[in-house]
Amino acid sequence: MTIKITGALKSTCTQRVVTVLHELGLEFELDQPTNFASLKSPEYLRDKHPFGRIPVLNEDGYQIFESRAIIRYLVSKQKSSLAPTDPQKLGILEQFLSIEYSYFNPPFSSLVDEKVFKPLFGRGDPDPVKVVELTKKADDVLDVYEKLLVGKDYLTGEYSIADIIHLPYLHYAIQVDYDLGDRPNVKRWWKNISEKPSWKKVITQG
Amino acid sequence: MTIKITGALKSTCTQRVVTVLHELGLEFELDQPTNFASLKSPEYLRDKHPFGRIPVLNEDGYQIFESRAIIRYLVSKQKSSLAPTDPQKLGILEQFLSIEYSYFNPPFSSLVDEKVFKPLFGRGDPDPVKVVELTKKADDVLDVYEKLLVGKDYLTGEYSIADIIHLPYLHYAIQVDYDLGDRPNVKRWWKNISEKPSWKKVITQG
Repeated sequence: MTIKITGALKSTCTQRVVTVLHELGLEFELDQPTNFASLKSPEYLRDKHPFGRIPVLNEDGYQIFESRAIIRYLVSKQKSSLAPTDPQKLGILEQFLSIEYSYFNPPFSSLVDEKVFKPLFGRGDPDPVKVVELTKKADDVLDVYEKLLVGKDYLTGEYSIADIIHLPYLHYAIQVDYDLGDRPNVKRWWKNISEKPSWKKVITQG
Repeated sequence: MTIKITGALKSTCTQRVVTVLHELGLEFELDQPTNFASLKSPEYLRDKHPFGRIPVLNEDGYQIFESRAIIRYLVSKQKSSLAPTDPQKLGILEQFLSIEYSYFNPPFSSLVDEKVFKPLFGRGDPDPVKVVELTKKADDVLDVYEKLLVGKDYLTGEYSIADIIHLPYLHYAIQVDYDLGDRPNVKRWWKNISEKPSWKKVITQG
């Protein structure tokens, strides 16, 4: 059984998948595309990802794309407690996975794009007006998280893939001086999840 | 066991959940908020949905929000084939669920908002320039779907929640003259999913 991941260690979506692979103790091979343009080639679109993105998982011919799908596949295959299967616990997990994609991801991915990826990929300097707007939106989301995390170490109560999917963008945001503010619950949660060996490995080796 | 859904029958997210409830043959009570403002009240934010949205499910005290989470909870509880549990089949299902949220939903929800909800809720007339732009983006997504659906009646091969979540926005788009174009696979798929009794019931009773 050989797991191959087409992805890039600086990519947030790849980082999510690699963190889960480390958590599960699974070996894998990483195939890093040479450049972004290659993701839009007719061959890549046909054979790997029809929308031209990373990551893609291939395990002995079984192939899927989309980081959130790959993660769910891996934890299901390994019967990991990172994704409980009891219907009520699954519902709570999926609620937090949807919260991440619906409310957390839009401002945080846009903020990180503006402050990190835009200059990194030569698309210009960060727009200070946009940065202020996006920081405000990100703050509003974390205000809700502060309430969702009252009395809890993790979003669902137990460490899960719902926590892991938040790591890459929150890490990048903090690296460029995003302030978690006066939110003790969010800070405790961030400490709990960002100090896991799986994530440490991603950011030191990535 | 009483399932209560806080939602609105014209709301796309509520429609997804109600379609699944019909598919599963589950009875439910619908609690329709009196107006949008009530979703932002301190009580609603505290007791129902911290981001002020619909739908919310409550089943004998067990409560979750986010349509995609509620759907996964319901099919898991009923052990329905609308969401297979075999890891490889689950991975494929989750891939298509993520495709919907990542690529289909942005242009189609924006197009429907511009042409349907903006005038409906008194936010002005549709902006013709935006409509053209969004239609082009929606077309590009369906060009990919045309390839994804080659030789298939449903996205994963079998009817699933991945098909159901596409129904509301595609239905609204077609109602305001969005053209599926020269895409025989997409058209076959749309016929297959939009003619199910569960969906017919939603749009005739909704």
